[in-house]
Amino acid sequence: MSERARDSEDNDERVTLTHGSGGQATRDLVSGTLAAGFEDAPDSLVGLQDWDDGAVLPFGGERLVVTTDTHVIQPPFFPGGDIGRLAVSGTVNDLAVMGATEVRGLTSAVVVEANYPRRNLERIAESMSETCREASAPVVSGDTKVMGNGELDGVTINTTGVGIAEHVTPDSGLSPDDVVLVTGTIGEHGISLLAEREGIDFEAELASDVQPLNGLLGTALAVGGESITAMKDPTRTGLAGALNEMARKSDVGIEISDERVPVTDDVTGAGELLGLDPYQIANEGVAIMGVEPTAAERVLAALRDHPKGENAAAIGKAIGDYRGRVVLDTGIGNRYMREPSKEVVPRIC
Amino acid sequence: MSERARDSEDNDERVTLTHGSGGQATRDLVSGTLAAGFEDAPDSLVGLQDWDDGAVLPFGGERLVVTTDTHVIQPPFFPGGDIGRLAVSGTVNDLAVMGATEVRGLTSAVVVEANYPRRNLERIAESMSETCREASAPVVSGDTKVMGNGELDGVTINTTGVGIAEHVTPDSGLSPDDVVLVTGTIGEHGISLLAEREGIDFEAELASDVQPLNGLLGTALAVGGESITAMKDPTRTGLAGALNEMARKSDVGIEISDERVPVTDDVTGAGELLGLDPYQIANEGVAIMGVEPTAAERVLAALRDHPKGENAAAIGKAIGDYRGRVVLDTGIGNRYMREPSKEVVPRIC
Repeated sequence: MSERARDSEDNDERVTLTHGSGGQATRDLVSGTLAAGFEDAPDSLVGLQDWDDGAVLPFGGERLVVTTDTHVIQPPFFPGGDIGRLAVSGTVNDLAVMGATEVRGLTSAVVVEANYPRRNLERIAESMSETCREASAPVVSGDTKVMGNGELDGVTINTTGVGIAEHVTPDSGLSPDDVVLVTGTIGEHGISLLAEREGIDFEAELASDVQPLNGLLGTALAVGGESITAMKDPTRTGLAGALNEMARKSDVGIEISDERVPVTDDVTGAGELLGLDPYQIANEGVAIMGVEPTAAERVLAALRDHPKGENAAAIGKAIGDYRGRVVLDTGIGNRYMREPSKEVVPRIC
Repeated sequence: MSERARDSEDNDERVTLTHGSGGQATRDLVSGTLAAGFEDAPDSLVGLQDWDDGAVLPFGGERLVVTTDTHVIQPPFFPGGDIGRLAVSGTVNDLAVMGATEVRGLTSAVVVEANYPRRNLERIAESMSETCREASAPVVSGDTKVMGNGELDGVTINTTGVGIAEHVTPDSGLSPDDVVLVTGTIGEHGISLLAEREGIDFEAELASDVQPLNGLLGTALAVGGESITAMKDPTRTGLAGALNEMARKSDVGIEISDERVPVTDDVTGAGELLGLDPYQIANEGVAIMGVEPTAAERVLAALRDHPKGENAAAIGKAIGDYRGRVVLDTGIGNRYMREPSKEVVPRIC
């Protein structure tokens, strides 16, 4: 067997960083390995096989939403936030984009390396509790484990959340003509984190957008109700990954106008220098929404009236053509907006 | 400052392996640091500050139980089980000992080191799905993250569970005269894991007892109902740690008869060779129950009729004296059964 063939076989048999990207490689690893033998709960409304931001279960006449994420971000303290704020926001937002803007409870499970400074844990815990207050999200149960020095690089935090959804807003909810909104500017989390890692000091003020969105999305749902057909937070795979997932699951095309997507000049500039497309990189403080055309203006106005939604914009719409794909109107022509299947940005969330 | 004083100050400021023991040091780290700023949900029936096996929240006329654990066991494959079986059993059992023997849903969040063999992940996933079937516990949502090679030693799995309790059985439920039962033999998980780590090949058949107990405890609850006043699974801190916690929280003394505690000769022998007390080491497949005296015989008979409870035994009772403490009747006199506050057994669960 040639050296190359052996390497390639070896790669097939080992986990790689790309498997953590959240894109196609992650889906392959999970469906081929991690979730292969699992059966969905017989009564689940949204289950494991739906690959959504959380599960939806009938529960005493209500819809219980459950979601989980382990946060492994490196560095744990970054411009605009830290792993504590991220852990709470990430799980609150996964609940919220399923329609559960009222958080019933969060769990927090911390794994920390022996010899880790207690002062850092204190800062992380303070940040978590502050973010919990911001999101009206109580931590109800927890777990703490210590691994040996050298067995874990720093700290990881799993947050799992349960909430109630009056109206479920799955990835698969889009229909042709639904207007696609984003609640804020795109690319801040990923670009600022990579700039920080590279040690590049831009003159620009780059900071992560990490924040809980349940208040903002609750306001939108109060105004739009069932006219809001789908929601998703564009995290690991960026705006492009999230839109492609929605198009695929909803079996619609999505047409996006490049010039309408809100991106700050700072993010655009830093992205160009770093060679990164802001559409392909993680966000932690914005959501995508699909809204029936008759309600779109009303919902957009409500988002813009909220302090966390002032940069909200209508960026496109679902269409009957190009099913399962996202078409970007660049002003000088159309091209597909592809999801980042190969890109490797480990430990970005 | 002397070398020794500096070392000791440094220890105060850094996390140590003892902080992961699950005993007093863990409580100090969590209450002093990790949970310091958190407030309990205003309507929680059992919350973060209760330090129980899970939280209990009112939910649509029912009682929702939520619990979380990150499993970091080393080695991930061990006699009697693996990290997958442990992850499902650990969380199912934490729900069950709160009274939620019907599991509504589990989440599974896997963090794996780059370069980890996919075959091992497959074995872990197969074991998880088998154990889920054994416990009638569906995995409803998941997460997968990859850390760099050298940033994590192998794999960690967080499992979080939600269930419904008709009757809540908290640590604090014991009253004087309640009979204390255990559902099986003590010490298997910890002793066999340490024997494996030390590479000692006993002639004895040592294997972890790791198993889901919700079927067994559901049977007991069906027979005993509200006569079952408290349940707990004696994991990281062993039988001694769990009984001390129950005594403290229930504000009773607990009197245990040494000769009645079921321990196999193999565990006793291996414990003596390893210098380990079976009462002070982790179990993953037994539970402790407090039962009102009038129902104790009935419940014990039901446990013994179940394939997972044939070694169940009445080992003592709650008393009005020695509040907050556990007294062991050794046959030649009484002594306190202390919880393992100093012992360091990292990554046992």
